[in-house]
Amino acid sequence: MNGGVDTAPAPGAVRPPPDALSLNTATVKLKWNLAQMIDGCARHGVRGIAPWRDKLAELGAAEAARRIRAAGLTVTGLCRGGMFPAADAAARRAALDDNRRAIDDAATLGAQCLVLVVGGLPAGSRDLAGAREQVREGIAAVLPDARAAGVPLAIEPLHPMYAADRACVNTLAQALDLCDALDPGGAGVHPRRAIDGGAWAPAAALGVAVDVYHVWWDPALDAQVARAGAARLHAFHVCDWLVPTRDLLEDRGMMGDGVIDLRRLRGLVEAAGYRGHHECEIFSSRDWWQRDPDEVLGVMKSRHAACC
Amino acid sequence: MNGGVDTAPAPGAVRPPPDALSLNTATVKLKWNLAQMIDGCARHGVRGIAPWRDKLAELGAAEAARRIRAAGLTVTGLCRGGMFPAADAAARRAALDDNRRAIDDAATLGAQCLVLVVGGLPAGSRDLAGAREQVREGIAAVLPDARAAGVPLAIEPLHPMYAADRACVNTLAQALDLCDALDPGGAGVHPRRAIDGGAWAPAAALGVAVDVYHVWWDPALDAQVARAGAARLHAFHVCDWLVPTRDLLEDRGMMGDGVIDLRRLRGLVEAAGYRGHHECEIFSSRDWWQRDPDEVLGVMKSRHAACC
Repeated sequence: MNGGVDTAPAPGAVRPPPDALSLNTATVKLKWNLAQMIDGCARHGVRGIAPWRDKLAELGAAEAARRIRAAGLTVTGLCRGGMFPAADAAARRAALDDNRRAIDDAATLGAQCLVLVVGGLPAGSRDLAGAREQVREGIAAVLPDARAAGVPLAIEPLHPMYAADRACVNTLAQALDLCDALDPGGAGVHPRRAIDGGAWAPAAALGVAVDVYHVWWDPALDAQVARAGAARLHAFHVCDWLVPTRDLLEDRGMMGDGVIDLRRLRGLVEAAGYRGHHECEIFSSRDWWQRDPDEVLGVMKSRHAACC
Repeated sequence: MNGGVDTAPAPGAVRPPPDALSLNTATVKLKWNLAQMIDGCARHGVRGIAPWRDKLAELGAAEAARRIRAAGLTVTGLCRGGMFPAADAAARRAALDDNRRAIDDAATLGAQCLVLVVGGLPAGSRDLAGAREQVREGIAAVLPDARAAGVPLAIEPLHPMYAADRACVNTLAQALDLCDALDPGGAGVHPRRAIDGGAWAPAAALGVAVDVYHVWWDPALDAQVARAGAARLHAFHVCDWLVPTRDLLEDRGMMGDGVIDLRRLRGLVEAAGYRGHHECEIFSSRDWWQRDPDEVLGVMKSRHAACC
């Protein structure tokens, strides 16, 4: 229709480059160890990987880093730090120590970010505001360590159904308020490589991980993704919201099997300047975790192309 | 400590008056019909009731209204209207007709409001913005009928985990944006009686139902309850959020069994001018629905006093 120079498709309007796909190890956690996952990514042409620390512990961070580099994979994130709120000071200190170990591991891996699942209410507590204050204090305490190690921290707002037991940061607006308070200005300081080899704004020391599963419902989503901007967008996670959802934690869907308009959401983060991977993270105890991981990676690749 | 005239407790700091409790019929829906519920409220000294339409249909609205009046109960709400989005125009028109019938029933009952659970995505749709626009159009279409019938409409923001299949209005801010758009100014027009016999601001034609289960996690809650103000606060629903929650729909907790700071939340609505009932609505297929409803009402009364 339009033969001029303005015919470039809008962000998100076209299929994603296959190189954009990254495997979060949670997706195949039951049947593969980390070495198998690295080999599987190489075999299926998946160019990124985001290990969880339980899987990392199998190999050790140094050996895992060596194998991931050898396979030519980008580490799109390390899952996870966080879990700051605790009932007493000793437990809070232990959480900070654990976050510092996670930062070291993320640095060893050259991870693009350390994902923070910030934690919920301490056992027996109903003090949500207090838990949120503990999260603020915890991130403030470890941010200097992350800066020194060159590891961007990514606050992941989790769906409000996890507010009590997993993360009391539940909207992108709330996460970005924390970023603005603790990392004012949000200047990009960590160089990054765009998936297409082009330019990508450096990452701020503190930013966010946008997981479609957690944020797709948010009436403020479009405005808050734009507010985040290129420097604070550290990760983009994809899966799908199933109807019905039979379990609060382990019933996420493969892209295309649910109701999330994934291509529109990719367009949002791209319009805000995100140029990184699309990390597939699926908790699915009844379905995908039961399948042959080679089948899972095959479906993941085709659905990424068709739906993201 | 402080013997002067400023020792009146802050709102929410003291036990609620027992007369404030209202029974939402969902709480005992499996074992009692509406006639039994009305009798049960009278027997247990519960002074309010909020019927669902399935229960209302058993008696018919006129007979139900007669019995409820005879028992001296306040109808704190009728559940529910809403469910506006649909895949085609005929289904959308049918939804409007159903809402008009609900308005008539609410008027017959003298209900303090008609609760709107606005509906989610039409089957097969991923167009969340479109569904939200259909909700706006639906409320706009029936608001004149509600005004004419003297029935305040109460938009109930539902927890984001219901965005796909039950209600795509998921925060109090979003509900109040709709109120401001469709009922600008939000002047109180419907007289109400406060539970303590004192003054209560009249209800706006369009307002909100605040259910602690749906909103307790919201970082913007305090500010949005204050924004609602007396005229737009039409109902206050209580139950509790269990950890773990084993089912997205039917695993709500009795007050005190979960993590919600109920007394603080009551304080918020009271500080904003709410002077109505505290309506107990518990979906609990494994626990409370299996018990003798007389036991449920007894526990509900004691927990209301101790925890709300």
